[in-house]
Amino acid sequence: MEPVNVADYERLAEQALPQDVFGYYAGGAEDEQTLRDNLAAWTRWHLRPRVLVDVGGVTTSTTVLGQEVALPILLAPVAYQGLAHPDGERGSARAAAAARTIMCLSTFANTAPAELAEAVPGGAHWFQLYWFRDSGVMRELVQQAVEASFGAVVLTVDAAVPARRERDVRTGFRITPDVPVPSVVAALGNPASGPPGELFSLVTPSVTWRRLEELSEFGLPVVLKGIVTAEDARLACEHGAAALVVSNHGGRQLDGGIPTADALTEVVDAVEGRIEVYVDGGIRRGSQVVKALALGARAVLVGRPFLWGLAVDGAAGVERVLTLLQAELAHALALCGCTSPADVTPAHVTRARL
Amino acid sequence: MEPVNVADYERLAEQALPQDVFGYYAGGAEDEQTLRDNLAAWTRWHLRPRVLVDVGGVTTSTTVLGQEVALPILLAPVAYQGLAHPDGERGSARAAAAARTIMCLSTFANTAPAELAEAVPGGAHWFQLYWFRDSGVMRELVQQAVEASFGAVVLTVDAAVPARRERDVRTGFRITPDVPVPSVVAALGNPASGPPGELFSLVTPSVTWRRLEELSEFGLPVVLKGIVTAEDARLACEHGAAALVVSNHGGRQLDGGIPTADALTEVVDAVEGRIEVYVDGGIRRGSQVVKALALGARAVLVGRPFLWGLAVDGAAGVERVLTLLQAELAHALALCGCTSPADVTPAHVTRARL
Amino acid sequence: MEPVNVADYERLAEQALPQDVFGYYAGGAEDEQTLRDNLAAWTRWHLRPRVLVDVGGVTTSTTVLGQEVALPILLAPVAYQGLAHPDGERGSARAAAAARTIMCLSTFANTAPAELAEAVPGGAHWFQLYWFRDSGVMRELVQQAVEASFGAVVLTVDAAVPARRERDVRTGFRITPDVPVPSVVAALGNPASGPPGELFSLVTPSVTWRRLEELSEFGLPVVLKGIVTAEDARLACEHGAAALVVSNHGGRQLDGGIPTADALTEVVDAVEGRIEVYVDGGIRRGSQVVKALALGARAVLVGRPFLWGLAVDGAAGVERVLTLLQAELAHALALCGCTSPADVTPAHVTRARL
Amino acid sequence: MEPVNVADYERLAEQALPQDVFGYYAGGAEDEQTLRDNLAAWTRWHLRPRVLVDVGGVTTSTTVLGQEVALPILLAPVAYQGLAHPDGERGSARAAAAARTIMCLSTFANTAPAELAEAVPGGAHWFQLYWFRDSGVMRELVQQAVEASFGAVVLTVDAAVPARRERDVRTGFRITPDVPVPSVVAALGNPASGPPGELFSLVTPSVTWRRLEELSEFGLPVVLKGIVTAEDARLACEHGAAALVVSNHGGRQLDGGIPTADALTEVVDAVEGRIEVYVDGGIRRGSQVVKALALGARAVLVGRPFLWGLAVDGAAGVERVLTLLQAELAHALALCGCTSPADVTPAHVTRARL
Repeated sequence: MEPVNVADYERLAEQALPQDVFGYYAGGAEDEQTLRDNLAAWTRWHLRPRVLVDVGGVTTSTTVLGQEVALPILLAPVAYQGLAHPDGERGSARAAAAARTIMCLSTFANTAPAELAEAVPGGAHWFQLYWFRDSGVMRELVQQAVEASFGAVVLTVDAAVPARRERDVRTGFRITPDVPVPSVVAALGNPASGPPGELFSLVTPSVTWRRLEELSEFGLPVVLKGIVTAEDARLACEHGAAALVVSNHGGRQLDGGIPTADALTEVVDAVEGRIEVYVDGGIRRGSQVVKALALGARAVLVGRPFLWGLAVDGAAGVERVLTLLQAELAHALALCGCTSPADVTPAHVTRARL
Repeated sequence: MEPVNVADYERLAEQALPQDVFGYYAGGAEDEQTLRDNLAAWTRWHLRPRVLVDVGGVTTSTTVLGQEVALPILLAPVAYQGLAHPDGERGSARAAAAARTIMCLSTFANTAPAELAEAVPGGAHWFQLYWFRDSGVMRELVQQAVEASFGAVVLTVDAAVPARRERDVRTGFRITPDVPVPSVVAALGNPASGPPGELFSLVTPSVTWRRLEELSEFGLPVVLKGIVTAEDARLACEHGAAALVVSNHGGRQLDGGIPTADALTEVVDAVEGRIEVYVDGGIRRGSQVVKALALGARAVLVGRPFLWGLAVDGAAGVERVLTLLQAELAHALALCGCTSPADVTPAHVTRARL
Repeated sequence: MEPVNVADYERLAEQALPQDVFGYYAGGAEDEQTLRDNLAAWTRWHLRPRVLVDVGGVTTSTTVLGQEVALPILLAPVAYQGLAHPDGERGSARAAAAARTIMCLSTFANTAPAELAEAVPGGAHWFQLYWFRDSGVMRELVQQAVEASFGAVVLTVDAAVPARRERDVRTGFRITPDVPVPSVVAALGNPASGPPGELFSLVTPSVTWRRLEELSEFGLPVVLKGIVTAEDARLACEHGAAALVVSNHGGRQLDGGIPTADALTEVVDAVEGRIEVYVDGGIRRGSQVVKALALGARAVLVGRPFLWGLAVDGAAGVERVLTLLQAELAHALALCGCTSPADVTPAHVTRARL
Repeated sequence: MEPVNVADYERLAEQALPQDVFGYYAGGAEDEQTLRDNLAAWTRWHLRPRVLVDVGGVTTSTTVLGQEVALPILLAPVAYQGLAHPDGERGSARAAAAARTIMCLSTFANTAPAELAEAVPGGAHWFQLYWFRDSGVMRELVQQAVEASFGAVVLTVDAAVPARRERDVRTGFRITPDVPVPSVVAALGNPASGPPGELFSLVTPSVTWRRLEELSEFGLPVVLKGIVTAEDARLACEHGAAALVVSNHGGRQLDGGIPTADALTEVVDAVEGRIEVYVDGGIRRGSQVVKALALGARAVLVGRPFLWGLAVDGAAGVERVLTLLQAELAHALALCGCTSPADVTPAHVTRARL
C-alpha cells in the first residue's frame, strides 16, 4: 500500500531500518515525555476556519529570510543521514531543491558543506552549527558553508551537553567509521566511532550570547535554534539574530520542558515582529503548519518526517513526504479560507476547551 | 438482539455494509481528530436538571424556519444513500415524513429532487447544495428543488475543496456507475466513476459571500451549513441567510478544527437571535440534543445515526432510529423539568468541571 | 480472601448474583456517563490534611435531622433488596441499627414499612417515597411509615419518568411475582411482573413544589432527594424541606448531568445553612466522605456499597461494609487533623490542579 | 542489561524481592490514588530552559541546614531496610556518605542510631522520629541520635495513625523477629512481629504543636516531615522548626490528598524564606529535582528510588542510583542554563498548559 501520510512513512521506516538506527531517530531523552508532549500540544490548539472565501487559487509559497520557498516547511538539520539511506544528505537536499524549500545541513552530517553544494548546485542550504571546543574547526566549517553559498548559519543552542537517550543505550547504537562524518574527521583526524554522545563531546558547553559576535563576522545571517522562552527570544533580537527556531530538539535533549506549540506564543509575543520565528517539534500534518502560522511562526521545520521518507525511498521518499505535507497544507489553507500563508492570522486558531 | 440505541445501529451497520462503504460513512479527514473531538465535546457539557415540575405531558415538537416538526432533529444531507440500502434517499425521506421532520437531500444523492418529491409527496424536504463549477447545472438543481416544493436550500460552505479521507484511500472506495448520481449525470452527461474526491471536483472552490445573492433569487430560504466562528455567523446574518448550521462536516473536511459543541456558544452569541442556528456533529443521544438546545440551537441535524438505520433496515431502520432519539429526547426533557424544547434555557447546561 | 474494601465487595457481589440482577444494581442510564462521572468527580477534589493535632480520640458521630448517628453515612433507598439476598431490607436495616445509622426504605422495597419496623424495632428508618399516580396508595404508604415511627419521608424528585437503563434491556431483567413488592400489590392488587420501568409507571410525573404541602400534613420531616442545582436548592428551603440530598440517582436516571461532587458546592452555597444537605453518588471510601463534609454536606448516603455487602453476606455483609467505611472515615479524619465530623471545614478540601 | 534509570532499578527490585516485601515498599494507601498523583503532578510542571549560558562547569552542590551536600537529594527515612538487602541501613548510609549527601534513619530502622554512626563514622545522618506513646523510649532514641552526632531530628507529622495499605493485607506482609527493629525491642522488650500497622501502634496520635518544645530541648534542629498546607507551614515557622518537608508519606498514609508537587507552591509562599523547605513524593528524575528547586525547594528526598538500588545491589546499588540521579540533575541544570542549584529560579518552571 502506497503511504498516504507521515505516519505511514514512519511505520515503513521502522521496517526498513535496523532497530538501533530507527530508535536513534525516533527516540527522545530520558522518559520521552517531551517527545510525546510535542505531538500532543498541537492537538490542543484548534483551527477556526473561515468560509465563503474564493480559494480557487491557493499557494503555499512564502519567504524565509527574504528567500522565496514554495512551502513554509524547511528540512530541519538531522545528523548522520547516511545511516538512513545511501542517498544521505545529498538525497534530502535534492528533494528539498525539487520542492523548492531549504535544507539545513547538520554539523554531524555525513556530507560536508562543499560536497552538498557540489551535489545539489541549485539548492538552498543552511548550515547547522554545533560550536566545537576547537574553534578552529568551527571556523573552518562555517567558512566552508560561506564558500559553498549556504544562506544562513543555524546555531543550535539547546544542546550544550550531550543528550541522555536511553533507547540508544539499550540498543547499543554506535556511530561507526564506515559512515564517516567530515566534521569529526576534521576535528579528530579520524572518523572516530562510539555512541553519539561521545562524538558530541567535541561540542563546547560554553558558548554565550557575547560570543555570537564571532559568528556574525562570517557575514551569514545567524538563526538561533532551540529557544522556548520570552527572555531568550528578547536576547536573540538584541544580539543580532536574524531569526530563531522555537525548538526543544524534538524532545531529544531536555526531557520535561515546555512543548514547542505552547512556547511559540510567548516567544512570538516577545519578539514583537523584530525577527522571523520558526518552530519545530511534533509537526506531522499540514493543518498543524497552519496552526503554527496562526500562532505567529513564519515557517516550520520538520525532521523525522522527511527522514522517514529518506529511509523508505531515498531522495524520492523525501520528495514524496514534502509533496504530501504541501498538499495537506494547501488543503488546510483552503478550508480555513486562506489563499496563502500570508492570509493566516491569529484569529485562525484558538485554545482547545477542556 | 434488538438495537436499543444509535451505537447498536452503528455496530449492525458495520456488519451489514461492505467495509469500504462503511468506512466512507464512518470515517473522517486525515487523523480523524475532529471526528473524535466532536463526540467528546458533548460530554464536556453537563445538564443541570430541574425538579418538581409537572412533566406529565412532554412534547418534542418545535418549528424550524416556521415549519412545525415533531422533533428538533433533522436528517442531515448525506451523499450516496443508495450505497447504504436499496431504499436510498427515498427510504430516509419516507422515515422523516413518518416522524414528521425534515430530510435534507444531498447534491450527491442517488435521487434527484423531483424523484424524491414524487416518491414522498407529503414530506418536508430541504435541498443541500454543492455549488458546481458549471453554474448552469447548479441553477438547474436548485430550480428543480423549487419546483419540487423543497422548503430551503442548504448551502454547504465548509467544503471548498475535496476532503482528504485516508480511510477511503486504504479501502479503495470508489463511486461506480451502477448507483448513479443524477447531479453528476447532469454535469458530465454520464454517471462517472472514481473516488468521491474526483466527483467532488465538479464543485467550485470560489463561492463567496457576494455570490449568495444569486441563490436568493430562487426564493427559497438559504441555510448556510458549515459555520463555526462568530465572524462568519455575523456575516451570515448580514448576507441574508435564513439560518445556519454550526458544522464541521462531521469531521470529514478540515481535521484539527474546533468541535461543534464548543463552536456553538460563540456562534449563538454572535447571531444575537437574528436567525436560527442549528448544529450537527457527534450527536448520538437525546440528552445531547437538550444540551444543544440549552446552548442556543433551534434544532440539530444527525447524519451517521440515521444512515446506520438505513443500512440495517432501510426506511424502517431510519424510522426506528428517529423514534429512539425522540424517546431519549422526551425522556431527557422530562428529567430536566422541561415539557417542550421551548422550555430549555441556557441555565440547563454548564461546562463540565475539570 | 476476606474483602478489605467496597470494591472487593462489588467483585464478590458480581460473582454471587445472577448477571441480570447484578447489572440492575451496578448499571446506570444510557451510556452510563454519569455513573462514571460521579466516581471520577470525587478524585478531582483533594484533601488538605492538617498535622500536629491530638487525634487520640476520633469519633465519627454526628447528627442528622437532630438524630444522633454513629457515622455520617446513611443507607440510601435501594429497591428490591430481596433480589440481592433473602435477608432483603430487613437485613440492611438490622445492619444499619447495629452500626447506629439510618436506613432509608424504598417505596419499591420488598418489605413494607410496618414489616420493617416490626423486624428491626430499635432501628432508625426513613421512608423513601415515589409519589404514585394513585395518591390514595401514596397516602397509605406514608401513613404506614408514620405509624411505624419512621423518622422522615425522603421524596425522590429526580425520577419523574422511568429510567432508560439499557443494561436491563440487554439482560432481560424483570421483576417477578415471587419476590413481591408490597406497594405494588397495594396499588395493583397483585404482585405484578415485568421490567422495572413498567412497575415504575405507577409513579406520577406531575408532582410539583406546591404539592409538597400534601406531604407535610403527615407531620414527618420531608427530605428532597435528587437536587443538583442552586435554583432548586433555594426552592427546597422556601417550600419547607427539612433537608435535601444532592443526588442524580446514582447515574441511573438522567445521563449527561452534573456529577454530585461538583453540584454539591453550588447547592451548599445556595442553601446558606438553612437546611441540612446530604450527598450521594460515587462514594466508595471514607476519605471521600471527608471531602463531602468539607464541601458542606452534613452526611452522605451510600447505595451500591451496602448492597454489595448484602448480596455477599446478608445483614452481616452490610454491617461489615459499614464497619469498613467507618474505619476508613475515622482514619481519614485523624490524618486530616480532625477528631470528629464537626472539625471538618471547607479548608480541608481543594480543587485538584490540572 | 545495566539499569540506566530509577525505573529500571524498580523493575529489577521487583524481581529481586519477595512479593510481599516489594509490595510493602512500592504500595500506597487504599486506592493508591495519591501514589499515582504524586508521580503525575511533576509532569504537569514544565521546565523553561535558558540558553547560551556557559555551563562548562556545572556543580550539583548545595547546603541543607548549613551542611554542604554534593547534591540536593537526600535519602528519605525508609523503615525496615534490612528486608530489602542484608546491607540494610548501613548500606544506604555508606552510599550516602560516598555520594556526600545525608541519610535519614527511620525510627523503624533495623539499625540503631549508634550502630549506624559506628558503621559509617564519616556519614551525615539525620534521625527520623516517630513519637512513641512511651515518651521514655522516644527520649532514649533521640538522645542516642544526639550522642551519635546526628545532624537533625526529622519528626514525621503525617502519620498520626497507622496506614491502611491494602496491598499488605493481600500479600500477608508481616514484620518477623528475625530482622529485629531496635526501637521496637527498646519499647517492648522483644523484637515483636506482625503487620506493620501493629508495630505502628507504639506511636502516639497525640503529638501537638506545643509538644515540639520537648524535642527542641535535645539541641538538634527539628525538621517537620509531612506538611502540605500553607497553614501548617506558617505554624512550623512559628514553632521553631528548622525546616520542613512537603510530603504525603509517598502516598502511603492519607489517600486522596494533594500531591506534593502541587502543595509545594503554597507552602513555599507561606514560609516566605524563613526556613528551608524540602519535598518528596514521586521524584524519579533529575529534571524533576530542577522543577522542585524552581518551585522553591532547597532539596528533595527520595525513598523508593534508593531502596530499589539497595534491593538490587546493596550499598553499591544505592550509590549507583544516586550517581544516576546526580548525573541527570547536572544534565538538566546545564540544559536549563544553570551552573548550580543556586542558579535555579521560579522562572525556570511553568504550569503545563492543558
